[in-house]
Amino acid sequence: MGRNGTFRVVAREGFARAGELETPHGIVRTPAFMPVGTAGSVKGLAPWELARLAPEMVLANTYHLLLRPGIEVVAELGGLHRFMGWSGPILTDSGGFQVFSLAQLRRVSQEGVLFRSHIDGTEFLLTPESCMDAQRRLGVDVAMALDVCPALPASRETLEQAVKLTGLWARRCRQALPAGEGPLVFGIVQGGLELDLRRQALEALLPLDFDGYALGGFSVGEPPEAMWQAVGVLAPELPEDRPRYLMGVGTVRDILEAVAAGVDLFDCVIPTRNARNGLLHTSRGPVVVKHARYRGCPEPPDPQCTCPTCQTCSLAYLRHLYLAREAAYVVLATVHNLHFYLTLMRQVRSAIIDGRFAELRQGISADLAAAVEAS
Amino acid sequence: MGRNGTFRVVAREGFARAGELETPHGIVRTPAFMPVGTAGSVKGLAPWELARLAPEMVLANTYHLLLRPGIEVVAELGGLHRFMGWSGPILTDSGGFQVFSLAQLRRVSQEGVLFRSHIDGTEFLLTPESCMDAQRRLGVDVAMALDVCPALPASRETLEQAVKLTGLWARRCRQALPAGEGPLVFGIVQGGLELDLRRQALEALLPLDFDGYALGGFSVGEPPEAMWQAVGVLAPELPEDRPRYLMGVGTVRDILEAVAAGVDLFDCVIPTRNARNGLLHTSRGPVVVKHARYRGCPEPPDPQCTCPTCQTCSLAYLRHLYLAREAAYVVLATVHNLHFYLTLMRQVRSAIIDGRFAELRQGISADLAAAVEAS
Ligand SMILES: [Zn+2]
Ligand SMILES: [Zn+2]
Repeated sequence: MGRNGTFRVVAREGFARAGELETPHGIVRTPAFMPVGTAGSVKGLAPWELARLAPEMVLANTYHLLLRPGIEVVAELGGLHRFMGWSGPILTDSGGFQVFSLAQLRRVSQEGVLFRSHIDGTEFLLTPESCMDAQRRLGVDVAMALDVCPALPASRETLEQAVKLTGLWARRCRQALPAGEGPLVFGIVQGGLELDLRRQALEALLPLDFDGYALGGFSVGEPPEAMWQAVGVLAPELPEDRPRYLMGVGTVRDILEAVAAGVDLFDCVIPTRNARNGLLHTSRGPVVVKHARYRGCPEPPDPQCTCPTCQTCSLAYLRHLYLAREAAYVVLATVHNLHFYLTLMRQVRSAIIDGRFAELRQGISADLAAAVEAS
Repeated sequence: MGRNGTFRVVAREGFARAGELETPHGIVRTPAFMPVGTAGSVKGLAPWELARLAPEMVLANTYHLLLRPGIEVVAELGGLHRFMGWSGPILTDSGGFQVFSLAQLRRVSQEGVLFRSHIDGTEFLLTPESCMDAQRRLGVDVAMALDVCPALPASRETLEQAVKLTGLWARRCRQALPAGEGPLVFGIVQGGLELDLRRQALEALLPLDFDGYALGGFSVGEPPEAMWQAVGVLAPELPEDRPRYLMGVGTVRDILEAVAAGVDLFDCVIPTRNARNGLLHTSRGPVVVKHARYRGCPEPPDPQCTCPTCQTCSLAYLRHLYLAREAAYVVLATVHNLHFYLTLMRQVRSAIIDGRFAELRQGISADLAAAVEAS
């Protein structure tokens, strides 16, 4: 039994659902978007700035924290919450994705992955057991199982291998961190765009009774339409009474499509990375902040936005700070873009509860299309 | 008459004084330290973060704003206050110092300085008239007269030339921006370490009835003791009923020495630049944040400090963010270091009012010496 029932669906509209996930650090109201705090910091945000944005949950990366400052350091300081000054729920990625995309000299065996740090070359062996132990010692609310995540396109054989190993590791992850002890644990469904492999992967995970189920290995090179279609089929097949998490996704459009298919959780670097690169998300579409048209623009990035950046800064000022490479720019742009994403998720959730999500999705998609045409 | 009397000395202890300078955007309580917002932004601080630190006045640079985004852009947006989202007093440096330290291909004539932008090579002519006009159009509270600022050591002849031209330009600056119109205007006393030249420079400025008098050209290469000695002689000779500003200074020790000599205003990049470079100022002396001894340190940078950084972050976390080059580090370190400087200035002012500044100065100097010995 354990924490079965820690996820409640409170409203439905079609496959879309509004839910509540109970965690040791509070309730996560879904659908929810998790800002990415890779190394224990959402880039550019002081702890109090993140607290003011009030995301439902924050994502951090086991891989990065393992390399620097080291799990031991964080654990001895009382865990990741205290370390990063964030008192809300935290989910950590297992490190699987980063090992396969960032680290050097990987040797994958049944035991685990041997790799070298991309920072200083130190050798690490990540096994399902060490991975779960690391997340437990970080004291996070949700730990992800260790998975094998191939980039797409990948051969059928590569995907089969990934699914097989991910399944074996999932069992060991669950044994290392059984229900009722420490963090909630989510299993990860791999299999690329091959639906039969995805189903096979899911079958292997279901008996392990994970606290949530994630679709991994999407948004790794395939066209968005292919992802929407696959997620549209797969999400409804994930257990109804557990949170469903689409990892590393995505654009506003991606999120709306996935919510419509019944996905509850998202994380993505898009709002924060775009902010740093000079792209602001607004209700009128994307704003390229360095554009000469904003040179003397007295308007905020989004007149409809209630974020502190839009309350205090003109586009002219933001453009100036961006071009002058002023450090405050990253703060201002990140606050705005995250506020935009988090506000969108709150609107999506309200809409599902009020039975008007289809309408909201239609409206936003039309706005996005119009903005693309106008730009 | 105009704004004669906009400066009131409210308390004295020896030569040290506590004062109040009335400006269009509020009263500046002195002694005061101005954080440096070179290009219209204190590096790393969102406007609301600067507002929370509540400095008495902020410094910005005419030179930098002239080059980028251009005075016209800021003026058309309603002035520098609105542009940078800061509603308190602003003082702008005239650009003289930057022209002589940053710009390329200077040609100094009686008319003004011809120079090329260090950013893109664009040619600019800065004259006393254009300099005053720029600061007026920025809408700042205090404009600095255009000066010639040679690096030290400099030949007697170089210093004489600088004093002579600064005097001529000061007259034209005052004519361009007479008392009672637009910003307050401060004259700048040059002359290096040659006291007779400094006095000659001051004599030329006095008839122009500036709203304040600055000592420029210090902390430009000379030993600190030489500066303390010169400032100790010169500051008391500046008009008693006008604010006295020691430009570009300095360390805590520099400030205490200068306050003791009767200086009211300071600006310096030390707290903000040191923050970015990993040096935190604390009541226990300087903290080099990357030091291995802080790897697992659960303490804030300064247990006595009430800043938001010290309320939320351990030295271990700050060290981690610094080593990982996380953007949030700059915010956290800058907030702490500026809070330290601004708190020091408030303590200095209270001490003067309560007649215990000598004691405070003694105590801090002893602490600093002990810290240096311990480190
Ligand atoms: Zn905004
Ligand atoms: Zn502090």
